[in-house]
Amino acid sequence: MTDRYSEHRQIARDLGVDAVALVPGPNFTRLFHQAFHVNERPLVVLIPAEGMPAALVPNLELRSFDLLNFEGEVFDWRDQTGYADAFAALARHMPLSSVAVEGQVMRVFIHHAMTTAWPGLRVVDGERQIAGLRLLKTPDEVAAMEEAIRLSERALARTLDQVRIGQTEKEIEQILTLSLFTEGAEEHAFSPIVAAADNSARPHAHARADYAVRAGDALLLDFGGRKGGFCADITRTVFLDHASDEAQAVYDTVLRANLAGFAATRPGVTAHDIDDAVISVLEASPYADRIRTKTGHGLGRDVHEAPYIMRGNAQVMQAGMVWTNEPGLYQIGAFGVRIEDDVLVTEDGCRSLTSFPKDLTILR
Amino acid sequence: MTDRYSEHRQIARDLGVDAVALVPGPNFTRLFHQAFHVNERPLVVLIPAEGMPAALVPNLELRSFDLLNFEGEVFDWRDQTGYADAFAALARHMPLSSVAVEGQVMRVFIHHAMTTAWPGLRVVDGERQIAGLRLLKTPDEVAAMEEAIRLSERALARTLDQVRIGQTEKEIEQILTLSLFTEGAEEHAFSPIVAAADNSARPHAHARADYAVRAGDALLLDFGGRKGGFCADITRTVFLDHASDEAQAVYDTVLRANLAGFAATRPGVTAHDIDDAVISVLEASPYADRIRTKTGHGLGRDVHEAPYIMRGNAQVMQAGMVWTNEPGLYQIGAFGVRIEDDVLVTEDGCRSLTSFPKDLTILR
Repeated sequence: MTDRYSEHRQIARDLGVDAVALVPGPNFTRLFHQAFHVNERPLVVLIPAEGMPAALVPNLELRSFDLLNFEGEVFDWRDQTGYADAFAALARHMPLSSVAVEGQVMRVFIHHAMTTAWPGLRVVDGERQIAGLRLLKTPDEVAAMEEAIRLSERALARTLDQVRIGQTEKEIEQILTLSLFTEGAEEHAFSPIVAAADNSARPHAHARADYAVRAGDALLLDFGGRKGGFCADITRTVFLDHASDEAQAVYDTVLRANLAGFAATRPGVTAHDIDDAVISVLEASPYADRIRTKTGHGLGRDVHEAPYIMRGNAQVMQAGMVWTNEPGLYQIGAFGVRIEDDVLVTEDGCRSLTSFPKDLTILR
Repeated sequence: MTDRYSEHRQIARDLGVDAVALVPGPNFTRLFHQAFHVNERPLVVLIPAEGMPAALVPNLELRSFDLLNFEGEVFDWRDQTGYADAFAALARHMPLSSVAVEGQVMRVFIHHAMTTAWPGLRVVDGERQIAGLRLLKTPDEVAAMEEAIRLSERALARTLDQVRIGQTEKEIEQILTLSLFTEGAEEHAFSPIVAAADNSARPHAHARADYAVRAGDALLLDFGGRKGGFCADITRTVFLDHASDEAQAVYDTVLRANLAGFAATRPGVTAHDIDDAVISVLEASPYADRIRTKTGHGLGRDVHEAPYIMRGNAQVMQAGMVWTNEPGLYQIGAFGVRIEDDVLVTEDGCRSLTSFPKDLTILR
């Protein structure tokens, strides 16, 4: 059967399970072009290897679910009576002994509801295969990402224009947030990271309301807007008033690693190869003890998705993949530097979707 | 043992399990006053009924994890080698035969990692008990919510000032978003709903880029800012240029239901009682066939949390609970009306944390 579920049916066959279960999230939105709030109300679509799909839908979402033009049976449930009966009816309608789920998306309460409705159900984590369908971006998807990235870069320029010594990290974060939405972001792709001085050495730092930035500080901004369902993810590290000789040398090292990532990327190389090229630059420097992260991750509907750019990952890169090239060096208690671009693999190499300057920048 | 884990230890004992597992999310943040990004990297804290806690932490989060002043053993893992070994080491350190998890928060891949590391592990959904610790808000938490609500109300006023006939729903959504962040929101509490005319009859509608609002339309805005970790959740429905007699009658019915919710609320009544009081007003009206939702839900660190205000829920209301009073009437294909306030249960009744006017509003 060739229909919009062909890829998912193939995954079910490949994994040797009766069906694939999808819940609201990036894979669901890619398939149905319709997003649903993720909350306490289960909504599940079951796609069997053969035959019609079926769904379990909260009654109050039925009108939104109509927009999917769903072909199969729909079992709805109401808050007042709960969802157990609807799961049981769905189980009678579609007997299953095994199912593949999105391990990174589905939450345990739905897992429990399913193993209750289908006793003895074998639940296989099909995350890699299901999310793998998002590995290759279509031209439309790349265009959507470029729009998210461009607005994020305009927001960064707007922010850096307003940064002043004496502002707190939290104040700078507010400026960045407002700039993102002024430039047209629909959402944050993730909670932005605005971190100066020693805080910049925490890869996932939180902005502090009680630290005012000072002359000589590194200031790391890692952020992105989401628009049209797609994410930007950009990091730049700048310095306030001046940068020490050490800071300049570290910055130069990270930049060389970032450039090595571009140089290593073309169809046919592996994620391992790229990470190896990038990390080798850092390892060959005097700052090897400051390495704390892999090179990057895929980017698309999710801010972290496949392919993960790290040693040991044999994933072969193909034209249409997008990944973040974000090497960094982090000296605990002192400062960190990260430079992050979003990279599209092309037929003959790669192209940076980000274009914000990467020369060492000192804000005065 | 009396320590910061006493409540969680008690839950483990009450549920007859060896430990409670927490992952990043609202319960984690309440306990540790530190948030972590939710992504593909597992981070789990195990709190046993007796004895020291232990944790599994991505290596690159260790410096952020330090801020928790965690008392127990920490097992870290790196992207390059994966987390299976760290889970196995944690399992040797803390043998478990059963564990309670946050069913609405923990994702299946962590569930699978745990049942692999502790073969035969019985995983109990402790969502109700663990999230139940957030039922009663402290005065500081209420103050944080009031700040989120006040900025959201300022954003609504700012938005309504700018709404004009001919704008698309999407344009109005952008105005609302920008207003929220201008007024100091740190994040959206949830993707805002901006829906006019027939779209307003979908309780969880998405703004359309291809529908321009017209004279006579209902315009429903359901949104909230998040600040300091707490959410606002407000809905107002206004009309453009004029409101039909039917629209006015429907609006009046929904408003009376909303007011009935306030009148019914004091410590000692149940969530059932409140929903019954609210829905009864709608049921007694000529529009009973337009009822599609329960009255509301708890509000706090999560935009949807306990107590769920619905018939059948025997939860006894207590001073310190906060819930959304959001009756609505939805005529498919025509229009919907919802009015939503955030309500604090007090010692002698209740108090609305929202103060935005609820008189029928016609934008001209």
